Amino acid sequence: MDNRPIGMFDSGVGGLTVYKEIKKVFPGEKIIYLGDTKRFPYGSKTKENIIDISRECIDYLVNKNVKLIIIACGTATSMALDTLKELYDIPIIGIIDPTVSYIKDMKYKKVGVIATRGTINSNTWELKLKENNDEIVVYNKACPLLAPLAEEGWTTNKIAKLTIKEYLSVFSDIDSLILGCTHYPLFEKVIKEELYDVDVVNTGIIIAEYLKTVLIINKSRKKVEDLFYLTDVESNFINIARKILNKKINIELIEI
Amino acid sequence: MDNRPIGMFDSGVGGLTVYKEIKKVFPGEKIIYLGDTKRFPYGSKTKENIIDISRECIDYLVNKNVKLIIIACGTATSMALDTLKELYDIPIIGIIDPTVSYIKDMKYKKVGVIATRGTINSNTWELKLKENNDEIVVYNKACPLLAPLAEEGWTTNKIAKLTIKEYLSVFSDIDSLILGCTHYPLFEKVIKEELYDVDVVNTGIIIAEYLKTVLIINKSRKKVEDLFYLTDVESNFINIARKILNKKINIELIEI
Repeated sequence: MDNRPIGMFDSGVGGLTVYKEIKKVFPGEKIIYLGDTKRFPYGSKTKENIIDISRECIDYLVNKNVKLIIIACGTATSMALDTLKELYDIPIIGIIDPTVSYIKDMKYKKVGVIATRGTINSNTWELKLKENNDEIVVYNKACPLLAPLAEEGWTTNKIAKLTIKEYLSVFSDIDSLILGCTHYPLFEKVIKEELYDVDVVNTGIIIAEYLKTVLIINKSRKKVEDLFYLTDVESNFINIARKILNKKINIELIEI
Repeated sequence: MDNRPIGMFDSGVGGLTVYKEIKKVFPGEKIIYLGDTKRFPYGSKTKENIIDISRECIDYLVNKNVKLIIIACGTATSMALDTLKELYDIPIIGIIDPTVSYIKDMKYKKVGVIATRGTINSNTWELKLKENNDEIVVYNKACPLLAPLAEEGWTTNKIAKLTIKEYLSVFSDIDSLILGCTHYPLFEKVIKEELYDVDVVNTGIIIAEYLKTVLIINKSRKKVEDLFYLTDVESNFINIARKILNKKINIELIEI
Protein backbone atom coordinates (compact mmCIF):
# COMPACT_ATOMS: atom_id res chain seq x y z
CA MET A 1 0.00 0.00 0.00
CA ASP A 2 1.57 3.27 -1.16
CA ASN A 3 0.30 6.08 1.06
CA ARG A 4 1.80 8.92 -0.96
CA PRO A 5 -0.80 11.32 -2.41
CA ILE A 6 -2.17 11.49 -5.93
CA GLY A 7 -1.33 14.70 -7.80
CA MET A 8 -3.85 16.30 -10.15
CA PHE A 9 -3.88 19.47 -12.17
CA ASP A 10 -6.21 21.46 -14.41
CA SER A 11 -6.38 25.01 -15.74
CA GLY A 12 -9.05 25.86 -13.19
CA VAL A 13 -12.04 24.42 -11.45
CA GLY A 14 -13.07 21.90 -14.12
CA GLY A 15 -10.73 19.18 -12.90
CA LEU A 16 -12.75 19.02 -9.69
CA THR A 17 -15.34 17.01 -11.63
CA VAL A 18 -12.61 14.36 -11.99
CA TYR A 19 -11.50 14.80 -8.38
CA LYS A 20 -15.07 14.20 -7.23
CA GLU A 21 -15.39 10.89 -9.07
CA ILE A 22 -12.02 9.67 -7.83
CA LYS A 23 -12.92 10.48 -4.24
CA LYS A 24 -16.16 8.50 -4.57
CA VAL A 25 -14.18 5.38 -5.45
CA PHE A 26 -11.05 6.11 -3.41
CA PRO A 27 -12.08 8.04 -0.28
CA GLY A 28 -8.85 6.93 1.42
CA GLU A 29 -6.55 8.47 -1.20
CA LYS A 30 -5.06 11.84 -0.34
CA ILE A 31 -5.19 14.17 -3.36
CA ILE A 32 -3.16 17.28 -4.09
CA TYR A 33 -5.09 19.40 -6.59
CA LEU A 34 -3.40 22.17 -8.53
CA GLY A 35 -5.69 24.65 -10.31
CA ASP A 36 -3.53 26.68 -12.67
CA THR A 37 -5.93 29.62 -12.64
CA LYS A 38 -3.15 32.05 -13.56
CA ARG A 39 -3.07 30.60 -17.04
CA PHE A 40 -6.79 29.75 -17.44
CA PRO A 41 -8.06 29.06 -20.05
CA TYR A 42 -5.69 26.53 -21.63
CA GLY A 43 -8.07 26.03 -24.57
CA SER A 44 -6.70 28.78 -26.79
CA LYS A 45 -2.98 28.17 -26.24
CA THR A 46 -0.39 26.52 -28.51
CA LYS A 47 0.93 23.01 -28.03
CA GLU A 48 4.41 24.27 -27.04
CA ASN A 49 2.88 26.58 -24.47
CA ILE A 50 0.71 23.81 -23.01
CA ILE A 51 3.72 21.47 -22.74
CA ASP A 52 5.74 24.13 -20.85
CA ILE A 53 2.84 24.89 -18.52
CA SER A 54 2.14 21.21 -17.86
CA ARG A 55 5.79 20.60 -16.99
CA GLU A 56 5.64 23.37 -14.41
CA CYS A 57 2.51 21.85 -12.88
CA ILE A 58 3.96 18.34 -12.86
CA ASP A 59 7.29 19.51 -11.38
CA TYR A 60 5.39 21.22 -8.60
CA LEU A 61 3.39 18.07 -7.84
CA VAL A 62 6.43 15.78 -8.08
CA ASN A 63 8.12 17.96 -5.43
CA LYS A 64 5.12 17.23 -3.22
CA ASN A 65 6.06 13.53 -3.42
CA VAL A 66 2.97 12.32 -5.27
CA LYS A 67 2.86 8.73 -6.54
CA LEU A 68 1.10 9.46 -9.81
CA ILE A 69 -0.18 12.41 -11.79
CA ILE A 70 -3.65 12.82 -13.25
CA ILE A 71 -4.02 15.46 -15.92
CA ALA A 72 -7.62 16.43 -15.17
CA CYS A 73 -7.70 18.71 -18.19
CA GLY A 74 -8.76 17.85 -21.71
CA THR A 75 -6.57 20.42 -23.42
CA ALA A 76 -3.37 19.45 -21.59
CA THR A 77 -4.10 15.76 -22.17
CA SER A 78 -4.72 16.18 -25.88
CA MET A 79 -1.76 18.46 -26.54
CA ALA A 80 0.91 17.40 -24.09
CA LEU A 81 0.42 13.93 -22.59
CA ASP A 82 2.41 11.93 -25.15
CA THR A 83 5.38 14.30 -24.82
CA LEU A 84 5.14 14.40 -21.01
CA LYS A 85 5.14 10.62 -20.72
CA GLU A 86 8.55 10.57 -22.39
CA LEU A 87 9.93 13.20 -20.02
CA TYR A 88 8.92 11.72 -16.67
CA ASP A 89 9.29 8.37 -14.91
CA ILE A 90 6.25 8.95 -12.70
CA PRO A 91 2.99 7.52 -14.11
CA ILE A 92 0.90 10.22 -15.81
CA ILE A 93 -2.75 9.55 -16.60
CA GLY A 94 -4.82 11.75 -18.90
CA ILE A 95 -8.51 11.76 -19.68
CA ILE A 96 -8.26 10.42 -23.22
CA ASP A 97 -6.81 6.87 -23.23
CA PRO A 98 -9.16 5.37 -20.60
CA THR A 99 -12.12 7.00 -22.34
CA VAL A 100 -11.05 5.68 -25.75
CA SER A 101 -10.90 2.18 -24.22
CA TYR A 102 -14.40 2.64 -22.82
CA ILE A 103 -15.80 3.77 -26.19
CA LYS A 104 -14.23 0.76 -27.89
CA ASP A 105 -15.46 -1.64 -25.18
CA MET A 106 -18.98 -0.27 -25.62
CA LYS A 107 -18.65 -0.73 -29.38
CA TYR A 108 -19.85 2.77 -30.12
CA LYS A 109 -19.53 3.71 -33.76
CA LYS A 110 -20.74 7.28 -34.07
CA VAL A 111 -18.96 9.34 -31.48
CA GLY A 112 -19.38 13.05 -30.82
CA VAL A 113 -16.59 14.99 -29.10
CA ILE A 114 -17.06 18.42 -27.57
CA ALA A 115 -14.03 20.23 -26.18
CA THR A 116 -12.02 23.45 -26.22
CA ARG A 117 -10.79 24.86 -29.51
CA GLY A 118 -7.23 23.72 -28.71
CA THR A 119 -8.30 20.15 -28.04
CA ILE A 120 -10.42 19.92 -31.18
CA ASN A 121 -7.70 21.47 -33.34
CA SER A 122 -5.17 18.96 -32.00
CA ASN A 123 -7.39 16.16 -33.38
CA THR A 124 -6.09 13.83 -30.66
CA TRP A 125 -9.48 12.34 -29.77
CA GLU A 126 -10.26 11.45 -33.37
CA LEU A 127 -6.81 9.93 -34.00
CA LYS A 128 -6.93 7.84 -30.81
CA LEU A 129 -10.52 6.73 -31.33
CA LYS A 130 -9.73 5.56 -34.86
CA GLU A 131 -6.55 3.69 -33.88
CA ASN A 132 -7.16 0.05 -34.80
CA ASN A 133 -10.81 0.79 -35.38
CA ASP A 134 -11.79 1.95 -38.85
CA GLU A 135 -15.49 1.68 -38.17
CA ILE A 136 -15.71 4.60 -35.77
CA VAL A 137 -16.90 7.90 -37.16
CA VAL A 138 -15.99 10.95 -35.03
CA TYR A 139 -17.85 14.25 -35.04
CA ASN A 140 -15.94 17.12 -33.43
CA LYS A 141 -17.24 20.41 -32.09
CA ALA A 142 -15.21 23.13 -30.39
CA CYS A 143 -17.21 24.82 -27.62
CA PRO A 144 -15.01 27.67 -26.38
CA LEU A 145 -17.76 29.34 -24.36
CA LEU A 146 -18.57 26.40 -22.10
CA ALA A 147 -15.56 26.63 -19.78
CA PRO A 148 -16.08 30.39 -19.21
CA LEU A 149 -19.81 29.75 -18.62
CA ALA A 150 -18.93 27.12 -16.03
CA GLU A 151 -16.45 29.50 -14.39
CA GLU A 152 -19.28 32.09 -14.21
CA GLY A 153 -21.47 29.49 -12.52
CA TRP A 154 -24.09 29.59 -15.29
CA THR A 155 -24.64 25.91 -15.96
CA THR A 156 -28.40 25.46 -15.91
CA ASN A 157 -29.87 28.87 -16.77
CA LYS A 158 -31.43 29.83 -20.10
CA ILE A 159 -28.14 31.16 -21.48
CA ALA A 160 -26.39 27.86 -20.72
CA LYS A 161 -29.26 25.93 -22.28
CA LEU A 162 -29.25 28.02 -25.48
CA THR A 163 -25.47 27.80 -25.75
CA ILE A 164 -25.56 24.01 -25.32
CA LYS A 165 -28.40 23.76 -27.84
CA GLU A 166 -26.44 25.85 -30.36
CA TYR A 167 -23.24 23.82 -29.94
CA LEU A 168 -24.99 20.43 -29.98
CA SER A 169 -27.10 21.27 -33.04
CA VAL A 170 -24.29 19.93 -35.26
CA PHE A 171 -24.83 16.38 -33.96
CA SER A 172 -27.64 14.55 -35.71
CA ASP A 173 -27.00 10.86 -35.25
CA ILE A 174 -24.48 9.85 -32.59
CA ASP A 175 -24.50 7.02 -30.05
CA SER A 176 -22.13 8.66 -27.58
CA LEU A 177 -20.87 12.12 -26.71
CA ILE A 178 -17.51 12.55 -25.02
CA LEU A 179 -17.24 15.53 -22.68
CA GLY A 180 -13.69 16.31 -23.76
CA CYS A 181 -13.16 19.13 -21.26
CA THR A 182 -13.42 18.50 -17.53
CA HIS A 183 -15.58 21.60 -17.05
CA TYR A 184 -18.36 20.07 -19.13
CA PRO A 185 -19.83 17.60 -16.60
CA LEU A 186 -21.20 20.75 -14.93
CA PHE A 187 -23.59 20.92 -17.90
CA GLU A 188 -24.38 17.20 -17.87
CA LYS A 189 -28.05 17.65 -16.98
CA VAL A 190 -28.67 20.19 -19.74
CA ILE A 191 -26.72 18.14 -22.28
CA LYS A 192 -28.69 15.00 -21.43
CA GLU A 193 -31.96 16.88 -21.91
CA GLU A 194 -30.76 17.85 -25.36
CA LEU A 195 -29.39 14.41 -26.30
CA TYR A 196 -31.57 12.04 -24.29
CA ASP A 197 -30.79 8.87 -26.25
CA VAL A 198 -27.02 9.35 -26.30
CA ASP A 199 -24.44 8.05 -23.80
CA VAL A 200 -22.94 11.26 -22.41
CA VAL A 201 -19.46 10.26 -21.26
CA ASN A 202 -18.08 11.94 -18.14
CA THR A 203 -14.34 11.27 -18.26
CA GLY A 204 -14.02 11.63 -14.47
CA ILE A 205 -16.11 8.48 -13.95
CA ILE A 206 -14.00 6.63 -16.53
CA ILE A 207 -10.72 7.66 -14.90
CA ALA A 208 -11.97 6.61 -11.46
CA GLU A 209 -12.84 3.19 -12.89
CA TYR A 210 -9.50 2.99 -14.67
CA LEU A 211 -7.64 3.79 -11.43
CA LYS A 212 -9.00 0.54 -9.95
CA THR A 213 -6.59 -1.25 -12.27
CA VAL A 214 -3.55 0.57 -10.87
CA LEU A 215 -4.46 1.37 -7.26
CA ILE A 216 -5.75 -0.78 -4.42
CA ILE A 217 -8.65 0.78 -2.55
CA ASN A 218 -7.34 1.75 0.88
CA LYS A 219 -10.14 0.71 3.20
CA SER A 220 -8.31 1.50 6.41
CA ARG A 221 -7.85 5.23 5.66
CA LYS A 222 -11.15 7.10 5.65
CA LYS A 223 -10.37 10.67 6.60
CA VAL A 224 -7.68 12.36 4.59
CA GLU A 225 -7.04 16.08 4.20
CA ASP A 226 -6.76 16.94 0.53
CA LEU A 227 -4.87 20.04 -0.57
CA PHE A 228 -6.01 22.60 -3.15
CA TYR A 229 -3.49 25.00 -4.65
CA LEU A 230 -4.24 27.83 -7.07
CA THR A 231 -1.72 29.84 -9.09
CA ASP A 232 -3.85 33.00 -9.10
CA VAL A 233 -6.76 34.50 -7.25
CA GLU A 234 -9.94 33.33 -8.92
CA SER A 235 -12.81 34.65 -6.92
CA ASN A 236 -15.29 32.18 -8.32
CA PHE A 237 -13.24 29.04 -7.67
CA ILE A 238 -14.51 28.43 -4.16
CA ASN A 239 -18.14 29.02 -5.17
CA ILE A 240 -18.01 26.60 -8.08
CA ALA A 241 -16.02 24.11 -6.04
CA ARG A 242 -18.83 24.17 -3.49
CA LYS A 243 -21.34 23.55 -6.27
CA ILE A 244 -19.38 20.55 -7.55
CA LEU A 245 -18.37 19.04 -4.22
CA ASN A 246 -21.21 20.20 -1.96
CA LYS A 247 -18.70 21.44 0.58
CA LYS A 248 -16.38 24.36 1.20
CA ILE A 249 -12.72 23.75 0.46
CA ASN A 250 -9.67 25.68 1.62
CA ILE A 251 -7.34 26.92 -1.06
CA GLU A 252 -3.77 28.12 -0.93
CA LEU A 253 -2.23 30.53 -3.42
CA ILE A 254 1.14 29.43 -4.82
CA GLU A 255 3.63 30.73 -7.35
CA ILE A 256 5.00 28.52 -10.14
CA MET B 1 5.90 65.95 -37.10
CA ASP B 2 7.04 62.69 -35.48
CA ASN B 3 6.66 59.87 -38.00
CA ARG B 4 7.44 57.04 -35.59
CA PRO B 5 4.55 54.59 -35.11
CA ILE B 6 2.05 54.40 -32.26
CA GLY B 7 2.27 51.20 -30.21
CA MET B 8 -0.88 49.53 -28.85
CA PHE B 9 -1.55 46.36 -26.95
CA ASP B 10 -4.47 44.32 -25.65
CA SER B 11 -5.02 40.76 -24.44
CA GLY B 12 -6.63 39.88 -27.75
CA VAL B 13 -8.86 41.25 -30.40
CA GLY B 14 -10.79 43.75 -28.26
CA GLY B 15 -8.23 46.52 -28.61
CA LEU B 16 -9.04 46.66 -32.31
CA THR B 17 -12.17 48.62 -31.38
CA VAL B 18 -9.79 51.31 -30.12
CA TYR B 19 -7.49 50.90 -33.13
CA LYS B 20 -10.48 51.44 -35.43
CA GLU B 21 -11.47 54.75 -33.83
CA ILE B 22 -7.88 56.04 -33.83
CA LYS B 23 -7.50 55.21 -37.53
CA LYS B 24 -10.70 57.13 -38.31
CA VAL B 25 -9.20 60.29 -36.82
CA PHE B 26 -5.53 59.62 -37.67
CA PRO B 27 -5.39 57.67 -40.95
CA GLY B 28 -1.80 58.84 -41.46
CA GLU B 29 -0.52 57.34 -38.21
CA LYS B 30 1.24 54.00 -38.50
CA ILE B 31 0.14 51.67 -35.70
CA ILE B 32 1.85 48.60 -34.31
CA TYR B 33 -0.77 46.43 -32.61
CA LEU B 34 0.20 43.67 -30.20
CA GLY B 35 -2.51 41.15 -29.31
CA ASP B 36 -1.26 39.14 -26.34
CA THR B 37 -3.45 36.16 -27.18
CA LYS B 38 -1.11 33.77 -25.35
CA ARG B 39 -2.25 35.24 -22.07
CA PHE B 40 -5.89 36.01 -22.96
CA PRO B 41 -7.99 36.67 -20.94
CA TYR B 42 -6.34 39.23 -18.66
CA GLY B 43 -9.60 39.69 -16.73
CA SER B 44 -9.01 36.96 -14.14
CA LYS B 45 -5.34 37.63 -13.40
CA THR B 46 -3.71 39.32 -10.39
CA LYS B 47 -2.37 42.85 -10.41
CA GLU B 48 1.25 41.65 -10.14
CA ASN B 49 0.74 39.32 -13.07
CA ILE B 50 -0.85 42.07 -15.19
CA ILE B 51 2.03 44.45 -14.42
CA ASP B 52 4.62 41.83 -15.50
CA ILE B 53 2.71 41.02 -18.68
CA SER B 54 2.20 44.69 -19.54
CA ARG B 55 5.92 45.38 -19.12
CA GLU B 56 6.71 42.61 -21.60
CA CYS B 57 4.26 44.08 -24.11
CA ILE B 58 5.58 47.62 -23.64
CA ASP B 59 9.23 46.52 -23.89
CA TYR B 60 8.43 44.78 -27.16
CA LEU B 61 6.74 47.89 -28.56
CA VAL B 62 9.48 50.24 -27.29
CA ASN B 63 12.00 48.10 -29.19
CA LYS B 64 9.93 48.78 -32.31
CA ASN B 65 10.69 52.49 -31.80
CA VAL B 66 7.12 53.65 -31.12
CA LYS B 67 6.54 57.23 -29.98
CA LEU B 68 3.77 56.46 -27.51
CA ILE B 69 1.93 53.48 -26.07
CA ILE B 70 -1.82 53.01 -25.89
CA ILE B 71 -3.03 50.35 -23.49
CA ALA B 72 -6.13 49.32 -25.41
CA CYS B 73 -7.20 47.02 -22.60
CA GLY B 74 -9.42 47.87 -19.66
CA THR B 75 -7.88 45.32 -17.30
CA ALA B 76 -4.28 46.36 -17.94
CA THR B 77 -5.22 50.04 -17.65
CA SER B 78 -7.06 49.58 -14.37
CA MET B 79 -4.47 47.35 -12.74
CA ALA B 80 -1.14 48.47 -14.13
CA LEU B 81 -1.15 51.94 -15.71
CA ASP B 82 -0.20 53.97 -12.64
CA THR B 83 2.74 51.65 -11.92
CA LEU B 84 3.82 51.55 -15.59
CA LYS B 85 3.86 55.33 -15.88
CA GLU B 86 6.49 55.44 -13.13
CA LEU B 87 8.64 52.83 -14.87
CA TYR B 88 8.81 54.32 -18.37
CA ASP B 89 9.72 57.68 -19.90
CA ILE B 90 7.62 57.06 -23.03
CA PRO B 91 4.04 58.42 -22.83
CA ILE B 92 1.55 55.67 -21.93
CA ILE B 93 -2.17 56.27 -22.43
CA GLY B 94 -4.85 54.03 -20.97
CA ILE B 95 -8.60 53.95 -21.50
CA ILE B 96 -9.59 55.30 -18.09
CA ASP B 97 -8.30 58.86 -17.59
CA PRO B 98 -9.62 60.33 -20.87
CA THR B 99 -12.98 58.64 -20.23
CA VAL B 100 -13.16 59.96 -16.68
CA SER B 101 -12.56 63.48 -18.07
CA TYR B 102 -15.36 62.95 -20.58
CA ILE B 103 -17.81 61.80 -17.88
CA LYS B 104 -16.98 64.84 -15.76
CA ASP B 105 -17.25 67.21 -18.73
CA MET B 106 -20.68 65.77 -19.52
CA LYS B 107 -21.66 66.25 -15.88
CA TYR B 108 -22.98 62.71 -15.58
CA LYS B 109 -23.91 61.78 -12.03
CA LYS B 110 -25.09 58.16 -12.15
CA VAL B 111 -22.47 56.16 -13.97
CA GLY B 112 -22.59 52.44 -14.73
CA VAL B 113 -19.34 50.56 -15.39
CA ILE B 114 -19.20 47.13 -16.98
CA ALA B 115 -15.83 45.38 -17.24
CA THR B 116 -13.93 42.19 -16.51
CA ARG B 117 -13.85 40.79 -13.00
CA GLY B 118 -10.25 41.99 -12.54
CA THR B 119 -11.10 45.54 -13.54
CA ILE B 120 -14.15 45.73 -11.31
CA ASN B 121 -12.31 44.22 -8.35
CA SER B 122 -9.52 46.78 -8.76
CA ASN B 123 -12.13 49.53 -8.22
CA THR B 124 -10.04 51.90 -10.34
CA TRP B 125 -12.95 53.32 -12.35
CA GLU B 126 -14.91 54.19 -9.22
CA LEU B 127 -11.92 55.77 -7.47
CA LYS B 128 -10.97 57.89 -10.50
CA LEU B 129 -14.57 58.92 -11.23
CA LYS B 130 -15.03 60.07 -7.65
CA GLU B 131 -11.75 62.01 -7.49
CA ASN B 132 -12.69 65.64 -6.83
CA ASN B 133 -16.31 64.82 -7.54
CA ASP B 134 -18.38 63.65 -4.61
CA GLU B 135 -21.65 63.86 -6.51
CA ILE B 136 -20.98 60.94 -8.84
CA VAL B 137 -22.51 57.60 -7.93
CA VAL B 138 -20.88 54.59 -9.61
CA TYR B 139 -22.57 51.24 -10.23
CA ASN B 140 -20.16 48.41 -11.10
CA LYS B 141 -20.88 45.12 -12.77
CA ALA B 142 -18.32 42.44 -13.68
CA CYS B 143 -19.24 40.72 -16.96
CA PRO B 144 -16.69 37.91 -17.36
CA LEU B 145 -18.57 36.20 -20.21
CA LEU B 146 -18.61 39.14 -22.61
CA ALA B 147 -14.98 38.96 -23.76
CA PRO B 148 -15.20 35.19 -24.46
CA LEU B 149 -18.53 35.76 -26.30
CA ALA B 150 -16.85 38.42 -28.43
CA GLU B 151 -13.93 36.09 -29.13
CA GLU B 152 -16.47 33.45 -30.24
CA GLY B 153 -18.02 36.01 -32.60
CA TRP B 154 -21.42 35.86 -30.87
CA THR B 155 -22.21 39.54 -30.45
CA THR B 156 -25.75 39.92 -31.79
CA ASN B 157 -27.37 36.47 -31.45
CA LYS B 158 -29.93 35.48 -28.85
CA ILE B 159 -27.31 34.20 -26.44
CA ALA B 160 -25.45 37.53 -26.58
CA LYS B 161 -28.73 39.41 -26.07
CA LEU B 162 -29.76 37.31 -23.06
CA THR B 163 -26.32 37.60 -21.51
CA ILE B 164 -26.31 41.38 -21.97
CA LYS B 165 -29.85 41.56 -20.55
CA GLU B 166 -28.82 39.51 -17.53
CA TYR B 167 -25.72 41.59 -16.83
CA LEU B 168 -27.44 44.95 -17.41
CA SER B 169 -30.44 44.07 -15.25
CA VAL B 170 -28.59 45.44 -12.20
CA PHE B 171 -28.73 49.00 -13.61
CA SER B 172 -31.99 50.75 -12.93
CA ASP B 173 -31.31 54.48 -13.16
CA ILE B 174 -28.05 55.54 -14.80
CA ASP B 175 -27.25 58.38 -17.19
CA SER B 176 -24.14 56.80 -18.72
CA LEU B 177 -22.60 53.35 -19.09
CA ILE B 178 -18.85 53.00 -19.54
CA LEU B 179 -17.75 50.03 -21.65
CA GLY B 180 -14.77 49.29 -19.41
CA CYS B 181 -13.36 46.50 -21.58
CA THR B 182 -12.35 47.13 -25.17
CA HIS B 183 -14.17 43.99 -26.35
CA TYR B 184 -17.50 45.47 -25.36
CA PRO B 185 -18.08 47.93 -28.24
CA LEU B 186 -18.74 44.76 -30.26
CA PHE B 187 -22.00 44.54 -28.29
CA GLU B 188 -22.80 48.24 -28.58
CA LYS B 189 -25.93 47.73 -30.68
CA VAL B 190 -27.41 45.17 -28.28
CA ILE B 191 -26.47 47.24 -25.24
CA LYS B 192 -28.09 50.35 -26.71
CA GLU B 193 -31.31 48.40 -27.38
CA GLU B 194 -31.33 47.44 -23.71
CA LEU B 195 -30.42 50.91 -22.38
CA TYR B 196 -31.83 53.24 -25.01
CA ASP B 197 -31.83 56.42 -22.90
CA VAL B 198 -28.28 56.02 -21.59
CA ASP B 199 -25.04 57.39 -23.06
CA VAL B 200 -23.09 54.20 -23.84
CA VAL B 201 -19.46 55.27 -23.73
CA ASN B 202 -17.07 53.62 -26.20
CA THR B 203 -13.59 54.35 -24.82
CA GLY B 204 -12.01 54.01 -28.27
CA ILE B 205 -13.83 57.12 -29.47
CA ILE B 206 -12.78 59.00 -26.34
CA ILE B 207 -9.11 58.03 -26.76
CA ALA B 208 -9.14 59.07 -30.43
CA GLU B 209 -10.51 62.47 -29.37
CA TYR B 210 -7.97 62.73 -26.56
CA LEU B 211 -5.10 61.98 -28.97
CA LYS B 212 -5.93 65.18 -30.83
CA THR B 213 -4.49 67.01 -27.83
CA VAL B 214 -1.12 65.27 -28.10
CA LEU B 215 -0.73 64.45 -31.83
CA ILE B 216 -1.00 66.61 -34.92
CA ILE B 217 -3.07 64.99 -37.66
CA ASN B 218 -0.66 64.08 -40.44
CA LYS B 219 -2.52 65.05 -43.57
CA SER B 220 0.33 64.31 -45.99
CA ARG B 221 0.55 60.58 -45.13
CA LYS B 222 -2.53 58.66 -46.20
CA LYS B 223 -1.39 55.11 -46.82
CA VAL B 224 0.49 53.45 -44.02
CA GLU B 225 1.02 49.77 -43.43
CA ASP B 226 0.04 48.88 -39.88
CA LEU B 227 1.50 45.81 -38.19
CA PHE B 228 -0.41 43.22 -36.14
CA TYR B 229 1.50 40.87 -33.87
CA LEU B 230 0.01 38.01 -31.84
CA THR B 231 1.71 36.03 -29.08
CA ASP B 232 -0.22 32.83 -29.78
CA VAL B 233 -2.30 31.28 -32.51
CA GLU B 234 -5.89 32.39 -32.03
CA SER B 235 -7.89 31.03 -34.91
CA ASN B 236 -10.73 33.46 -34.44
CA PHE B 237 -8.64 36.63 -34.34
CA ILE B 238 -8.64 37.24 -38.08
CA ASN B 239 -12.39 36.58 -38.37
CA ILE B 240 -13.31 38.99 -35.59
CA ALA B 241 -10.78 41.52 -36.84
CA ARG B 242 -12.55 41.42 -40.20
CA LYS B 243 -15.87 41.98 -38.45
CA ILE B 244 -14.51 45.02 -36.57
CA LEU B 245 -12.45 46.56 -39.36
CA ASN B 246 -14.35 45.36 -42.45
CA LYS B 247 -11.10 44.17 -43.97
CA LYS B 248 -8.64 41.30 -43.76
CA ILE B 249 -5.46 41.97 -41.82
CA ASN B 250 -2.16 40.10 -41.87
CA ILE B 251 -0.86 38.89 -38.56
CA GLU B 252 2.56 37.74 -37.46
CA LEU B 253 3.21 35.35 -34.58
CA ILE B 254 5.86 36.51 -32.12
CA GLU B 255 7.36 35.26 -28.88
CA ILE B 256 7.67 37.49 -25.81
